[in-house]
Amino acid sequence: MGRRTAGNLRKIPYLCLANNMITRADIQLVRSLADKRARTETGLFVAEGTKLVDEILRSPLHVKRVFAREGVFAPGEAEIVSPKEMERLSLLKTPSDAVAIVEIPRRKPPYESLAGRLTLLLDGVQNPGNLGTIIRLADWFGIADICCSPDSADCYNPKTVQASMGAILRVGVHYLQPAALLEQARAQNLPVYGTFLEGDDLYRAPLSQEGIIVMGSEGRGISPETERFVSEKLFIPSWPPGRQGSESLNVAIATAIVCAEFRRR
Amino acid sequence: MGRRTAGNLRKIPYLCLANNMITRADIQLVRSLADKRARTETGLFVAEGTKLVDEILRSPLHVKRVFAREGVFAPGEAEIVSPKEMERLSLLKTPSDAVAIVEIPRRKPPYESLAGRLTLLLDGVQNPGNLGTIIRLADWFGIADICCSPDSADCYNPKTVQASMGAILRVGVHYLQPAALLEQARAQNLPVYGTFLEGDDLYRAPLSQEGIIVMGSEGRGISPETERFVSEKLFIPSWPPGRQGSESLNVAIATAIVCAEFRRR
Repeated sequence: MGRRTAGNLRKIPYLCLANNMITRADIQLVRSLADKRARTETGLFVAEGTKLVDEILRSPLHVKRVFAREGVFAPGEAEIVSPKEMERLSLLKTPSDAVAIVEIPRRKPPYESLAGRLTLLLDGVQNPGNLGTIIRLADWFGIADICCSPDSADCYNPKTVQASMGAILRVGVHYLQPAALLEQARAQNLPVYGTFLEGDDLYRAPLSQEGIIVMGSEGRGISPETERFVSEKLFIPSWPPGRQGSESLNVAIATAIVCAEFRRR
Repeated sequence: MGRRTAGNLRKIPYLCLANNMITRADIQLVRSLADKRARTETGLFVAEGTKLVDEILRSPLHVKRVFAREGVFAPGEAEIVSPKEMERLSLLKTPSDAVAIVEIPRRKPPYESLAGRLTLLLDGVQNPGNLGTIIRLADWFGIADICCSPDSADCYNPKTVQASMGAILRVGVHYLQPAALLEQARAQNLPVYGTFLEGDDLYRAPLSQEGIIVMGSEGRGISPETERFVSEKLFIPSWPPGRQGSESLNVAIATAIVCAEFRRR
């Protein structure tokens, strides 16, 4: 008898949602999806919260299972679970009212659609919350694609999904070698922006409405291999100028200030 | 014989740092300080990481104990602990190399120093990481004081201390009733700014270099009681204008964009 483990879930036919009973294996599956390995093996991720799950149900994403407290969704839209079961399912400290298991969508890297728009490249952003916050602000500022180096946080980490507040459904997040993207940008004569302590004042530098904006990792900034491609080095001025204080800004904060300035222009 | 618990630590004389042995009670004390109640009772907080602890040692703060791995600090500056002990001490997932127990400083609310400068007022910011990120960016943008409503996250929460990256040593964080601060600001004829979905475009609104910038909580924004005092409602425009996407930005991100724009002017 096969158990529904993360490994063999793909072989199980998609069942009618209504009247299913939640099993221990379901709970194990949801909890296993906190780990990247299980997400990669199954091609699934977990989304939590009534608002997010509702948005997903109305999106083109393929939803495998929806678990919710009674009364949250219309009958038939979700499998009803008790507060106790939700406590065991939920990956959050305060259990949510709805949990969905969703297929990870396959998205084409935006190599051919770089011209005429801004694209973000994250070079080793490690913190899942930072990544989610960046996805959310990219959505706010109309940036359609975020490319991440392979060592960046995974965008389907539950903390990232949570912090993105639904923006993960609208922004394409791609994992690729930075050099591959940057060579494309160079071939298309597009500017590559990056923030550096020795860069030019963001507010005086010429900014275009197309190109790549590179943001580095929390600890080490932009890697030397990526820096080679940067054509415009930018610096977010602190205040008052020259003051000795914090040495840097959080990467999501820096991304926001840079994107806001591109859009203000 | 009295045990060194959080409750009676104040009664124990300050001992010479060198050659102390770490006890189970020490470990319990550090771990207890993850909770606000223990911090309030003892008047102590925990700081982690070589860089932060080193900054604290060179700051006017009163340090109670310093634990560090061998070779991190000069002899006599810290009590040496083994990797195993550090694992038990550290509140972080990846144990740090240094942990300090520090007295919470008493700071005077900035009621009398509001003129001629910008002051942040956080109206119910809940997430400790967001608060720490805001403290860090306030330091970057030369904002000396952050006032928090009593229901805001605690600035000595280990996650906040961590996210502030040392800025907690330079920025004054005060807990007070928003109305008390805002009545002061009103009496001094200072503008009170706040972000609202129906506010004026941040980039076209008149901005002064003095006054209060109010940021609301993650879930509900600025409370109605605080909103009464807001003289200038601002809105961070999304892009392209009028696009349907994310409904809002993370509070730390919004704070950053607003502060950056004040300073750009």
